[in-house]
Amino acid sequence: MSMNFSSKLLENAVNEFAKLPGIGGKTALRLVLHLLRQNDDEVDHFGNTILKLKKEIKHCKVCHNLSDTDICHICSDIRRDFSTICVVENIRDVMSVENTNQYNGVYHVLGGIISPMEGIGPADLNIISLIEKISAENSVIKEIILALPTTMEGDTTNFYIFRKLGNLKVRITTIARGIAIGDDLEYADEITLGRSILNRTDFETTLRN
Amino acid sequence: MSMNFSSKLLENAVNEFAKLPGIGGKTALRLVLHLLRQNDDEVDHFGNTILKLKKEIKHCKVCHNLSDTDICHICSDIRRDFSTICVVENIRDVMSVENTNQYNGVYHVLGGIISPMEGIGPADLNIISLIEKISAENSVIKEIILALPTTMEGDTTNFYIFRKLGNLKVRITTIARGIAIGDDLEYADEITLGRSILNRTDFETTLRN
Repeated sequence: MSMNFSSKLLENAVNEFAKLPGIGGKTALRLVLHLLRQNDDEVDHFGNTILKLKKEIKHCKVCHNLSDTDICHICSDIRRDFSTICVVENIRDVMSVENTNQYNGVYHVLGGIISPMEGIGPADLNIISLIEKISAENSVIKEIILALPTTMEGDTTNFYIFRKLGNLKVRITTIARGIAIGDDLEYADEITLGRSILNRTDFETTLRN
Repeated sequence: MSMNFSSKLLENAVNEFAKLPGIGGKTALRLVLHLLRQNDDEVDHFGNTILKLKKEIKHCKVCHNLSDTDICHICSDIRRDFSTICVVENIRDVMSVENTNQYNGVYHVLGGIISPMEGIGPADLNIISLIEKISAENSVIKEIILALPTTMEGDTTNFYIFRKLGNLKVRITTIARGIAIGDDLEYADEITLGRSILNRTDFETTLRN
């Protein structure tokens, strides 16, 4: 849609919003007009929060998660189990695993996965720091849980890390794949269903959860 | 969804985006993470554009449209026909009419419509300035086109303005309602179809358009 803006200031703001993923011109206009209806303090707060975010946010030096401090609150929490590292693609995955309340280890955020199609190689990701962390002489790490997506890229990345860690005395696991709780078998894809049969668990273990 | 944020800065930014209409928590997170992937200049530009917008934007003193200057570019364009005023609910409607390239008059933006249900009365809208403009001694205004929504609120507002202007020598019209071009009759609602029959136009006039 071409838009006849009565104001360049308005047009600029709409264009900025329209650069965001999934936000088209009409939605951008609606968002900007909404902001204009708010009072000055609220709009100031909106703009300044974003400026402050970009200026002050850090990546944790240990796990590469987004953090307000040099070491994130997970990596600096002495109640966590530092012998287990869950390797994830991005910070959203950290949030998802944390939301389960089932994991007390720490994380390592790769910042992406290996994708030759998109030109992303191991050097573009936080893989070297993972290897170094595990192979360090004073390392306490006993297990690496690979929690990457079940795509070709995820499998490639899993295999790359597996090969790099092959000589080290550390257990390498991946999260269980299977039929989601509440899902009907008839709607599951064959590969997932096949894997869930191969990786069947003793019924007794399910009673403990 | 409850979110376990690893960073207060991140959480604040996500909360700001989630205040916008139609933006939920997950979308807000996606937008903020997108901004974090942009370079510093781009994010600075995004934040500053919004701050500047709210600080500097004005409402045209003549028509109340959003404007960078005291008088908007339409009201200060001597090629426009100042004898005709199109009365609209909001600035988006100005943009829609401008997009048609069929109108050369000027506008008056009410900033809403009368809605007793939402507690919006005539005093909350730019109605007094419209009446004053038309009743001014040196007024050149000959026609008022009411282009408000066909809702009960729109009709109420139309009628209110009509009564206020009743004594003045000015033609009051409303935009034509009918079957949209390209629409099938069988899918039109009865009221629209009924009106389009009552307000039928001479076939000859359609040939001129």
